[in-house]
Amino acid sequence: MAEDPFDQVAFLGFDVFGTVVDWRSSVSRWAEPFLKRHGIRVDPHQFADEWRALYQPAMERVRSGQRPWVKLDILNRENLETVLSRHGADVRQIPQAELAEMNLAWERLDPWPDSVAGLTRLKRRFAIGPISNGHMAGMMNLARFGGLPWDIIVGAEVARSYKPQPETYLGSAAAVGLPPERIAMVAAHNEDLTAARALGFRTIFVRRPREHGPDQTTDLEPRSRWDVIVGSLLEVADALGCV
Amino acid sequence: MAEDPFDQVAFLGFDVFGTVVDWRSSVSRWAEPFLKRHGIRVDPHQFADEWRALYQPAMERVRSGQRPWVKLDILNRENLETVLSRHGADVRQIPQAELAEMNLAWERLDPWPDSVAGLTRLKRRFAIGPISNGHMAGMMNLARFGGLPWDIIVGAEVARSYKPQPETYLGSAAAVGLPPERIAMVAAHNEDLTAARALGFRTIFVRRPREHGPDQTTDLEPRSRWDVIVGSLLEVADALGCV
Repeated sequence: MAEDPFDQVAFLGFDVFGTVVDWRSSVSRWAEPFLKRHGIRVDPHQFADEWRALYQPAMERVRSGQRPWVKLDILNRENLETVLSRHGADVRQIPQAELAEMNLAWERLDPWPDSVAGLTRLKRRFAIGPISNGHMAGMMNLARFGGLPWDIIVGAEVARSYKPQPETYLGSAAAVGLPPERIAMVAAHNEDLTAARALGFRTIFVRRPREHGPDQTTDLEPRSRWDVIVGSLLEVADALGCV
Repeated sequence: MAEDPFDQVAFLGFDVFGTVVDWRSSVSRWAEPFLKRHGIRVDPHQFADEWRALYQPAMERVRSGQRPWVKLDILNRENLETVLSRHGADVRQIPQAELAEMNLAWERLDPWPDSVAGLTRLKRRFAIGPISNGHMAGMMNLARFGGLPWDIIVGAEVARSYKPQPETYLGSAAAVGLPPERIAMVAAHNEDLTAARALGFRTIFVRRPREHGPDQTTDLEPRSRWDVIVGSLLEVADALGCV
């Protein structure tokens, strides 16, 4: 019988936005009344997509050293103002408290329907936690909002670095006290798994073909022979023998 | 009616060793077969007390800047070797794996009988997590061992500083995204609450008169008028209206 590559694995690290939670539906739902109230005429799903589209370039300025480390909520807030301005809003006319509240949408995202049940089963065998680019408080609030039963929160803030930089994965591994080969990265994004595998992590690809809505073109299929390739977190639990 | 000082509180930060878990009984129980196997003649409770007694001086060397930041498991391991040597053991004769295993006792401590039920109730209203001098992996393993339902793990490692230094509390507050006045520190140790209150935290004192065994002389009573003074985590839940 072949050796189980997960025999030595003790921790599962999860990408969160897209892999565990459905940011697009949730952000657009929170945005709808906000946009209406301020007379900003843009489809809420398009608004969510545009806001999200500024996420990678904003992190890239930190990764490249162009600006010092800042937490994700700061980047999201700046990007919110950028998107609003593009649609003709005068951001100075919107109360600060309302902008702050809108920005909290990223801490109030619905889990995918299989996420809580899948994590609950996985937690019986493995310690589990986000290895996300989200900041710690945001991940904590998101977990409380959606009932995500994390054992610990690691990721970008602990490492002061954004994925896919190696430091984010290695800093998270150090924080949970395990070498990379005893950790599996779970993500719906090939790029995330490529970076994790290069450092020795096990890899689990979860298909999330609606993360970007009905017309998604990216990450529909695995780009490599990841250790596990499935369609939900319940199937991750099945694959790893977690009943 | 008087204002509820906990109205604005959103996070409860817990001291762990002594407040949430009973380190003395557990460490002595894990130590007993180890000491017997290596012919080290010392009462396991005395051994636990002596090991623990080296904890504050070891952290003090980090606090004072005499040595750079190290995680608690490193300090515990050094202190283990010191105590064993004092009792005549030749530490070089003990396999490294056995020393490592003995050191893991600090990640396998029984919660006090009221801890899990109390935390479970408190978690319904507040986000909860350790603000402990323990390291993140140790806190994660301890939570999994005892079923402690933390939302997040903050404390010494996040802040790279040991309580009662202000940085440990303030770094933990920053990580959970709240100002000190929106956090309550829960501890069985007056010194911990004194430091937290000086920074603006709310304070909850839990009597743990057997933490140091039947002859305990310290922290039997509150030394100040803490916001809440109780005898268990269930009573904390009662006091804060968490049913």
